[in-house]
Amino acid sequence: MRIGVLTSGGDCPGLNAVIRSIVHRAVVDHSDEVIGFQDGWKGLLECDYRKLDLDAVGGILARGGTILGSSRVQPAHLRGGVQRAKGHVADLGLDAIIPIGGEGTLKAARMLSDAGLPIVGVPKTIDNDIAGTDVTFGFDTAVGVATEALDRLKTTAESHQRVLIVEVMGRHTGWIALHSGMAAGAHAIVVPERPFDIDELTVRIGDRFEAGKKFAIVVAAEGAKPRAGSMVFDEGGRDVYGHERFAGIARQLSVELEERLGKEARPVILGHVQRGGTPTAYDRVLATRFGWHAVEAVHRGEFGHLTALQGTDIRMVPLADAVEDLKTVPDQRYAEAECVL
Amino acid sequence: MRIGVLTSGGDCPGLNAVIRSIVHRAVVDHSDEVIGFQDGWKGLLECDYRKLDLDAVGGILARGGTILGSSRVQPAHLRGGVQRAKGHVADLGLDAIIPIGGEGTLKAARMLSDAGLPIVGVPKTIDNDIAGTDVTFGFDTAVGVATEALDRLKTTAESHQRVLIVEVMGRHTGWIALHSGMAAGAHAIVVPERPFDIDELTVRIGDRFEAGKKFAIVVAAEGAKPRAGSMVFDEGGRDVYGHERFAGIARQLSVELEERLGKEARPVILGHVQRGGTPTAYDRVLATRFGWHAVEAVHRGEFGHLTALQGTDIRMVPLADAVEDLKTVPDQRYAEAECVL
Amino acid sequence: MRIGVLTSGGDCPGLNAVIRSIVHRAVVDHSDEVIGFQDGWKGLLECDYRKLDLDAVGGILARGGTILGSSRVQPAHLRGGVQRAKGHVADLGLDAIIPIGGEGTLKAARMLSDAGLPIVGVPKTIDNDIAGTDVTFGFDTAVGVATEALDRLKTTAESHQRVLIVEVMGRHTGWIALHSGMAAGAHAIVVPERPFDIDELTVRIGDRFEAGKKFAIVVAAEGAKPRAGSMVFDEGGRDVYGHERFAGIARQLSVELEERLGKEARPVILGHVQRGGTPTAYDRVLATRFGWHAVEAVHRGEFGHLTALQGTDIRMVPLADAVEDLKTVPDQRYAEAECVL
Amino acid sequence: MRIGVLTSGGDCPGLNAVIRSIVHRAVVDHSDEVIGFQDGWKGLLECDYRKLDLDAVGGILARGGTILGSSRVQPAHLRGGVQRAKGHVADLGLDAIIPIGGEGTLKAARMLSDAGLPIVGVPKTIDNDIAGTDVTFGFDTAVGVATEALDRLKTTAESHQRVLIVEVMGRHTGWIALHSGMAAGAHAIVVPERPFDIDELTVRIGDRFEAGKKFAIVVAAEGAKPRAGSMVFDEGGRDVYGHERFAGIARQLSVELEERLGKEARPVILGHVQRGGTPTAYDRVLATRFGWHAVEAVHRGEFGHLTALQGTDIRMVPLADAVEDLKTVPDQRYAEAECVL
Repeated sequence: MRIGVLTSGGDCPGLNAVIRSIVHRAVVDHSDEVIGFQDGWKGLLECDYRKLDLDAVGGILARGGTILGSSRVQPAHLRGGVQRAKGHVADLGLDAIIPIGGEGTLKAARMLSDAGLPIVGVPKTIDNDIAGTDVTFGFDTAVGVATEALDRLKTTAESHQRVLIVEVMGRHTGWIALHSGMAAGAHAIVVPERPFDIDELTVRIGDRFEAGKKFAIVVAAEGAKPRAGSMVFDEGGRDVYGHERFAGIARQLSVELEERLGKEARPVILGHVQRGGTPTAYDRVLATRFGWHAVEAVHRGEFGHLTALQGTDIRMVPLADAVEDLKTVPDQRYAEAECVL
Repeated sequence: MRIGVLTSGGDCPGLNAVIRSIVHRAVVDHSDEVIGFQDGWKGLLECDYRKLDLDAVGGILARGGTILGSSRVQPAHLRGGVQRAKGHVADLGLDAIIPIGGEGTLKAARMLSDAGLPIVGVPKTIDNDIAGTDVTFGFDTAVGVATEALDRLKTTAESHQRVLIVEVMGRHTGWIALHSGMAAGAHAIVVPERPFDIDELTVRIGDRFEAGKKFAIVVAAEGAKPRAGSMVFDEGGRDVYGHERFAGIARQLSVELEERLGKEARPVILGHVQRGGTPTAYDRVLATRFGWHAVEAVHRGEFGHLTALQGTDIRMVPLADAVEDLKTVPDQRYAEAECVL
Repeated sequence: MRIGVLTSGGDCPGLNAVIRSIVHRAVVDHSDEVIGFQDGWKGLLECDYRKLDLDAVGGILARGGTILGSSRVQPAHLRGGVQRAKGHVADLGLDAIIPIGGEGTLKAARMLSDAGLPIVGVPKTIDNDIAGTDVTFGFDTAVGVATEALDRLKTTAESHQRVLIVEVMGRHTGWIALHSGMAAGAHAIVVPERPFDIDELTVRIGDRFEAGKKFAIVVAAEGAKPRAGSMVFDEGGRDVYGHERFAGIARQLSVELEERLGKEARPVILGHVQRGGTPTAYDRVLATRFGWHAVEAVHRGEFGHLTALQGTDIRMVPLADAVEDLKTVPDQRYAEAECVL
Repeated sequence: MRIGVLTSGGDCPGLNAVIRSIVHRAVVDHSDEVIGFQDGWKGLLECDYRKLDLDAVGGILARGGTILGSSRVQPAHLRGGVQRAKGHVADLGLDAIIPIGGEGTLKAARMLSDAGLPIVGVPKTIDNDIAGTDVTFGFDTAVGVATEALDRLKTTAESHQRVLIVEVMGRHTGWIALHSGMAAGAHAIVVPERPFDIDELTVRIGDRFEAGKKFAIVVAAEGAKPRAGSMVFDEGGRDVYGHERFAGIARQLSVELEERLGKEARPVILGHVQRGGTPTAYDRVLATRFGWHAVEAVHRGEFGHLTALQGTDIRMVPLADAVEDLKTVPDQRYAEAECVL
C-alpha cells in the first residue's frame, strides 16, 4: 500500500513519535510505502512531499516538533481545495492519508472523508479537549512542564510572600489547569468551563493568609473568565484601559487580587514552553500506539475514523464523533480538585 | 468519622500524595479525624499512630517516600494478628482503615475485611500489575526514570559501539520494560510473561549490526527468563559458576550475547532509582484522586473494595477481584512494541 | 561560639543548603550554637529568632526557598536600626552574624561591619553580578531552567515558523541571558551592558530567514535596552501608548520585530520560575562550601569579609570589594557567544 | 585555513557542542574549512573524513554522543602510525588538528605535537581528572545525573530502612563521588585517593542508626579501595570467592556492611547513565567556549597546547602539563564534605 502522512496545526510533543511509528509499522511489517507531505494540508494541496523510510525517521522518537513541518492551512481555505486534494491522492496512487492534527485538522479530515478520500485521523492536542479519546498525546508533557514550573514557583511565592497567578494553556477547556493545579497543590484553579466569582476567589485566598500562610498559587487556564460584571474588566477580555494586546487572565487577576487583598500579586504566563520539546514517556508510548493502530486501520480499510485511547485500549472512533463537541472537564473532576471556583 | 491510614510494602512515588489527599478530603470537607499508623500494619498491630491534620501533610505532595513509614509486616505474620488488629480498631473507635499497599498488603486487607473490619484499599505498585485498575500510581514515575536513563544510554552505546542490556524492575510482569522500551525505542524487550529465545534475540541484534547500526539496546525486565535450556545458565537463575548472589538477567544476557555476537555487551541495572523520589504529575493526580475516592467510599460505607482507575473514572472494585491474579501484559501490547521476543 | 544566621532579599536556589552547611559545620565540628533570624534583617531588628540544630536543617539541602524566611527590610530603613541591631547582638551574646543575601544585603552587612559588628557575609544572587566571586549559587539553577525552556521553545518556534523573544532575568547584567543563550544556541542575545541596535538585530534575524531557516530565537535580559532613539518606544521603557505596566523588553521587541520583518513574533517571559525550586548539584555544592567557609572565617575572626569562589577555591574577600560595582559581562564573553548585538 | 577535528575515547556530554562551536567559529568568522575524522585517531590514520559545514552541525548542540564517532585506537597502536598521520595531514593540506579527548588522547596529541604536527587539544573527561584545567565538560552532567539518582534513592533507602551503597564513576579520582555526595547529602563518601578504613565506616554508619536515623547512603567512586587487609576481599578487587567479573566496590561494601551492621545493605551501580545524553547548560557553555578558543589558538599558531578553564577565563596550557599527572581531589575539598572517610 501507499500511505501519505501529514502533521497540521500547532506544535505538540509526540508528533515525531507518531510519524516514526507509522513508518516502522507500515514499511517493516507491511512492506508499505510511506510519503510525508510538507507543512500539513499545504503539502497535499501543493503536492509537496518526500518518501519516508526507516532512515528518515531515525532518532526522532524523543524529539519535539515535527520533521514534516506544519501549517494552519486547511483544504477549505483554497478554492477547489478538496478537488485538488482528491486529484493529488489519485495522481500519487495513495491508498490512504493519515492526517495528524487537532480539531480543525480533524474537521478537514472529516470533510475530505465525506468527499470520498480514504482517511484515518490521529488526534493531536496538548489541550486534551478532543472528544472520543480519553487522552491525547502532548497533554501529559504539557501538564508535566506546567507542574515543574509550579513546583519552582511555590518556593518563590513563599519567600516573597506573594500571590502568584500562573496562566497555563487551555483556551476552551481547563484540562491542563486542572491536572497541573492538582499535581502541584494549587490553592485555586480557574477554568473556561466554569466562570469564576472574583469575590469567592478573594475570600478563598484571603482566608488562606488569615490562617497564617504566607503565599498562594492560583492556576488560571488562559480561557478562564470571571462571571459577567464581577471584575473591573469586561468579558471581552479588555482591561480597564481598553487595551487588548497585553490582556490575559493572569495579568488581569493579579491587578484585581492585589487591590482586593492588599498583598503583592504577580502574573506568570508559562506560554509556549508547554507545547514544545521532548515528550514524556507517557506521550511517546501513546503516540507510538496511535501510529501503529492508524496503519492497522488503513489495512482493514476502516476509513473515516480516528485512533482513540479508551481505558487501556486503542479503538477506532468515527471522525464525526470527535469533532462535534469539545471534551470539557466533567464536574466530578473539579470536585476532586477541591480548589476550583 | 475516624479514619486510620497506613502505608505498607516497598517505596512508591505518590504515597504521600494519597495520604495528603485523604487528610484534605476527610478533615476539610467531612470534618473527619484521621490518624496515621507508623510503619504499615506494624503500627496497627502495635497501636503506634499519630494524628494527621492539615499541618502534618503540608508540603508533602511532591515528596517521595512516605511520612508514615513502611514495613513488610503483615497481620498474618503474628499469632493473633487479626484479633489484635480488630481490638485496636475497636479501642481507637475507628470507622474505617485505609491501607495503601501492593499485592501482599491488599491480600491482608482482604483477610481483615473478611474478618469484619471496615476497609477501603488503595492499590500501590510501581510494577502496574494489580488487577482491576488500568494503572497504579508510581508506575508512570518508574517508566519516566527508566526512559530518561535509556535516552542517556543510547548515545553512550552508540559512541562505544556496544550492546547494552538494561535491566528494569518487574519481577512478574513486563509493564515497565514494555513502556520504557517503547518510549526509548529499544531494539529488543524481554519480559517475564514470555520466555525469550536466545537464538532469536541473537539474530535480531546481529541483523541490526549487519544493517550497519553501531549499537543496540535491550531492555530486560528483572524477571525475564529464557526458554528452558536455551542459555548457559539454568532456569533457577544461577550462572555457569553456580553463583547466585550476583545473578540477574542483564549480567547473564551480556555474557551470553557478547560471546554469541562477538560484540562488546554490557549490563546496566537501573535498580532502586526507579522506585523513589518525586512523583510525576500523572502519578500525583492519580494518587490524589485515589485518596479522595477512598474517603468517599468510607462515607458511603463501601468497604471491602479498593480504588481503581477505569478509563478516566475512579471506580470501586472488590478487594477479591484485585488479588486473585496479577495483571500481565496482553499479547496485543507486545505486538505494538514490535520488538519483543 | 554563638552564631546568628539570616537570609535576606529575593528567593534563590541554594539558600537552604547554605543554612544547613553552616549548622553542620558549626554545631557538629565546632560545638557552636547557631540561631536563625526570621525574615532577614527584620528578625535581627525585632529579635525574632529560633535555635537551629541538626534536626532543624534535616532534609532541606535540595529544597528551594529558605526555612528562615526573607524580607527586603534593611537596618537603615528603621530609625536607630543599626543601634538596635548592635543591642540585640550584645543581648543574645552573638560572636558572629552570617547574613546570606544580595547586593543590598551585603551593603547593609558592610555598614553593620563598619559599625563594629562581627559579620561574615555569604553572597547570593541568581543574577551572578556580585563582584569578587567567580560565581554565586542560584545562577547555575537559573541558567539551567532558562536553557531547558529554550530547548523546548525551539521546536515550537520551528513548527510555527516564528520569531520568539524570550525574556530572562537580569536587570543590570546579562549573565543569565549570555549563558542560557549560548547553551541553547540562541540566534541573538541582548543584554543591559550593551545597548543593542534594532536595525542590526533586524538584519541578523532577516538574514537567517533569507538563508532558509524557519524560525529564530532571541534571548533578552529583562534589562536589555535599545540604543537611544532606535525603537518606537523610548528609553524609559514605555511603549508607544505610554503604557508602563505591561512594558518589558520581550513584548516591545516582538511588536517591533514583527512589523519590521513581516514574520510572526511572540514574547515569552520566563519570570519567577528561574529563581525558585530545587537547586542544581552545582549550586548545592557551591552553597555548601560557602556555608562551611563562612563558619571557618568566624572561627578565624576574619570579619568584614564574604565568601567567594575564585577558580576552584573558596576565599574571603572584603565586603567593601564586593559592593562597589556590579560584575558585568566582559566583552570577551560576548565575543565568544558570537551572536550578541 | 583547513582544520581537522576528531573525538576520541569514551562518551562525554558536550562533545557535539565542541564540534559545533569549532565549525561556527572557524567557518563563519574565519572562513576556514573544517573536516571531521571518523572514529577518532582511526579516521586520521585511515584518512576517513568528511567536510563539516554549518548544516553538518545543525541541531547537535544539546545532543549527547558525537556525530564524528569515537574509538580507542591511538596512533602508537599502529606500526608507523605517527608517520602515517603526518602523511595524511600533509596530503590533506591541514593547518591544524584539534583532537577532543581524555588523558590517552592528549598523550597521543602530545606525541604527535612533538613529532611536529600542528595540534591544539581539547580536554574531555567526565571524571574531571585532567590537570591544568579547573573543570572539564561532561563532569557537571555526570554529577547532575548522579545527584538526581541519589535524591531518588534517599526516599527509597528511608522507606526500606536500608544502607544503600551507590557506586559512581571515577576509577582514579573521586571528583564525581565528592560532588554528587555533597550535593545529595550522602552520609559517607569513599574515593580512590584515600583508602578507607572499613571499621571507621562501620562506626560512622552505625552511629547514625543509633541516633535514630532509619537509613544511610554511602557514595563510592568505582576506584575506591579499603586500606590493605581491612576487608574480606583483597586489594586486587576479587571477592572471597576469587570471582572477578562481578566485582565492584559497591557490591563488596554491601556484603561487608550488612554483616557488620546487621542492617540490610544494597548496592546500586549507576554506570553508563552518567556519561551519556544531553549535557547540562554548564557543560554546553564550557564546551562551546573550548571550541571557540581552540580555533583562536589555531589562528594564533599556539600549537602543542590545550584549552583550559582557569577561574572564569579560558587559557591555553601546554599539553605536557596536562598529561603528567592526574588531578586528584585536594584534602581541603574532603574536609569540606565532612563525611569522607
